Amino acid sequence: MRQDIDQLMQDRGLDALVVLGAGQHNPFMVYLMGGAHLTRAYLIKKRGASPLLFHRAMERDEASKSGLPCKSIEEYRPDQLLQESGGDVTLANARLLKRMFEELGLLSGRISFYGQMESGEVYSLLNALQKEMPQLSLVGEVGNSTLLTAMETKDEQEMARIRKMGEIATEVFKLVANYLQAQEVDHDMLVDSQGRPITIGEVKRRINLWLAMHGAENPHGTILAIGKDAGVPHSVGNDADPIRLGKTIVFDLFPCEAQGGYYSDMTRTWCLGYASDEIHQLYEDVLHVYQAMLAEIEAGKPLRTLQLRACEMFQSQGHATILEAPLTEKGFVHSLGHGLGLHIHERPFLRSNADEDERLKPCSVVTLEPGLYYPQREMGIRLEDTLWISPDGKAEVLTEFPLDLVLPIG
Amino acid sequence: MRQDIDQLMQDRGLDALVVLGAGQHNPFMVYLMGGAHLTRAYLIKKRGASPLLFHRAMERDEASKSGLPCKSIEEYRPDQLLQESGGDVTLANARLLKRMFEELGLLSGRISFYGQMESGEVYSLLNALQKEMPQLSLVGEVGNSTLLTAMETKDEQEMARIRKMGEIATEVFKLVANYLQAQEVDHDMLVDSQGRPITIGEVKRRINLWLAMHGAENPHGTILAIGKDAGVPHSVGNDADPIRLGKTIVFDLFPCEAQGGYYSDMTRTWCLGYASDEIHQLYEDVLHVYQAMLAEIEAGKPLRTLQLRACEMFQSQGHATILEAPLTEKGFVHSLGHGLGLHIHERPFLRSNADEDERLKPCSVVTLEPGLYYPQREMGIRLEDTLWISPDGKAEVLTEFPLDLVLPIG
Repeated sequence: MRQDIDQLMQDRGLDALVVLGAGQHNPFMVYLMGGAHLTRAYLIKKRGASPLLFHRAMERDEASKSGLPCKSIEEYRPDQLLQESGGDVTLANARLLKRMFEELGLLSGRISFYGQMESGEVYSLLNALQKEMPQLSLVGEVGNSTLLTAMETKDEQEMARIRKMGEIATEVFKLVANYLQAQEVDHDMLVDSQGRPITIGEVKRRINLWLAMHGAENPHGTILAIGKDAGVPHSVGNDADPIRLGKTIVFDLFPCEAQGGYYSDMTRTWCLGYASDEIHQLYEDVLHVYQAMLAEIEAGKPLRTLQLRACEMFQSQGHATILEAPLTEKGFVHSLGHGLGLHIHERPFLRSNADEDERLKPCSVVTLEPGLYYPQREMGIRLEDTLWISPDGKAEVLTEFPLDLVLPIG
Repeated sequence: MRQDIDQLMQDRGLDALVVLGAGQHNPFMVYLMGGAHLTRAYLIKKRGASPLLFHRAMERDEASKSGLPCKSIEEYRPDQLLQESGGDVTLANARLLKRMFEELGLLSGRISFYGQMESGEVYSLLNALQKEMPQLSLVGEVGNSTLLTAMETKDEQEMARIRKMGEIATEVFKLVANYLQAQEVDHDMLVDSQGRPITIGEVKRRINLWLAMHGAENPHGTILAIGKDAGVPHSVGNDADPIRLGKTIVFDLFPCEAQGGYYSDMTRTWCLGYASDEIHQLYEDVLHVYQAMLAEIEAGKPLRTLQLRACEMFQSQGHATILEAPLTEKGFVHSLGHGLGLHIHERPFLRSNADEDERLKPCSVVTLEPGLYYPQREMGIRLEDTLWISPDGKAEVLTEFPLDLVLPIG
């Protein structure tokens, strides 16, 4: 949680965190200042102190909404810095950061950098800064970084927002199911009242509308994949495809709050009208693992154990998994789940190469998403819910929605 | 244009470009491979060769939609690389890149990096890669980089998409104007049929709906700022504010194609019902500069001259500008315009510190957005259109919409 950041910084010997980039769609910036329409900002947090937000003068009102102490970049006269740097933008920006650090008394120590930026630009910037301030130690944490570790557990305000996004996702699932079930059928295809085939693209257009109506955003799009596409986990589906009865439809929705806030993530697999025995059997296999793992998931469980357990269950059903066949493209080919919050994928990751001491924490949020994929047989099944691991360690489903395979039509 | 990239690479002595990060909302990745739902990818383009796209195995169908030669990251066994690197994720990722480079015969030379990434992660990654491959020269271009320079001019396919986004933006302006004009008035405030005040937030909610209906996305939100907020260029407005007659409303819309494609950008300033003489005068001043500059803008004009001319005109009207008062918060406080494409802000930038030889190019796209801001007087005016500089050098407005100040109500 945010309240742990100073302790985490101390454990890692960090004197300051710096977040670069925009004020929106920039998870670490949103985490530390709440999100605001800033095209370019610098947030600097010294250990033990409140963050300071540096912003462009004409964005001062937006910056002040953060409630943080703020300062306009223009006060450092970037135009003069650029002149003094002979027109070298990178050097001028490094000197701008240097001025900020000097103002905060950050003349030595270890400083960790965060924030979405252009790769080449930040590589040049930080190497130039290192030359300008050789006494600083610039750090790029990866994986279990200070802020990702803090983010792994959520406080009550965060949970209220994630819970609300779960409700919105669930509501959109209801709207999509109702819409599909209200259509006519012609030659085993869904058609509208004029007899025109309903396409994947048309359903996706409506999904975006329904999300917008609820104030949500869909920056990564939607997976709505039928038949062959359903057999590849991250195939998003083909807009022009008609929607046929009896085919597996993987519907995976992962919207976030407007302008890049908290996410939700859920998946159902549907067959419209009917399903073959083969599909029913696959579905039962996935549902079995889903239910068994939902019963097992609780705080304290090693992350790798959860993945290994799911793989064991799928193997005992006769399916390949990435555990014994790392390059397999059929069977259970991905990990059992991932944390989410301001990132759609963040810690914890339920995977077999997690360290043995990485365990599921109270107050974390994680998806549970077993699936089976058979691209050659043109079918795939995934069931996914977002779970909250409550302070007392129990798992609560935040995306409650029926787990039926077949959606009756007409 | 894309077709210029190899020549630009040669001019800059670059042997390869590498783009890191996701397949969407990542402008340089979208530019070189068209955009696809890839959570993590590596695009490597050697000079004179087609780009090669490295993707996760379970995203192979999405990757193949790019039409580029593709290869699955899993073929390099990242799990084994992680083990061989003693669990050091950064080192394992650097070695993954090294394997890709070796496969492409990139054993020496200058390589330039692009793509939206986490700052700390990319800083660590590229410094680790530099250690692993000391014979490479890793480059982070800034400002007039190879790809930003290529992007500065647009080909026909790009223009068709930007033109379409301009039409969508214009259509949404029409819908917003119609909506506002259809409301009732009570105590100089817009109210709905039940007498409840219409708020800024309610209008923004509808804007997002109308954009979604047209297949567009609004990742940076909308500026809809009234009165005092209109007096600060990048104040987005306050959701709870009622909409009062006679106040300046700055409405600045900058949507993009879904999942992070091409942008449009336009602004109108409206007063509902009536406007004071003071506002009318300010509006005339901005409109005068808008029209004068629209008549002047053409290919070949030095970028700085355009900004200087606008500042001169505003000064002759008696307004402060950032030219003679760099820290002013009233008058004309920003630059006259910016390029746009896959970024909402990209080259060319119409600003006074542009180099003398930087000129407006045929086939570029640029906004024209003069404005005047008086936060103390609680008013601001901005007029903005997206212009295409055609191959024959003339400016064409892509966001054609009436330039009226007063929107009659009732």
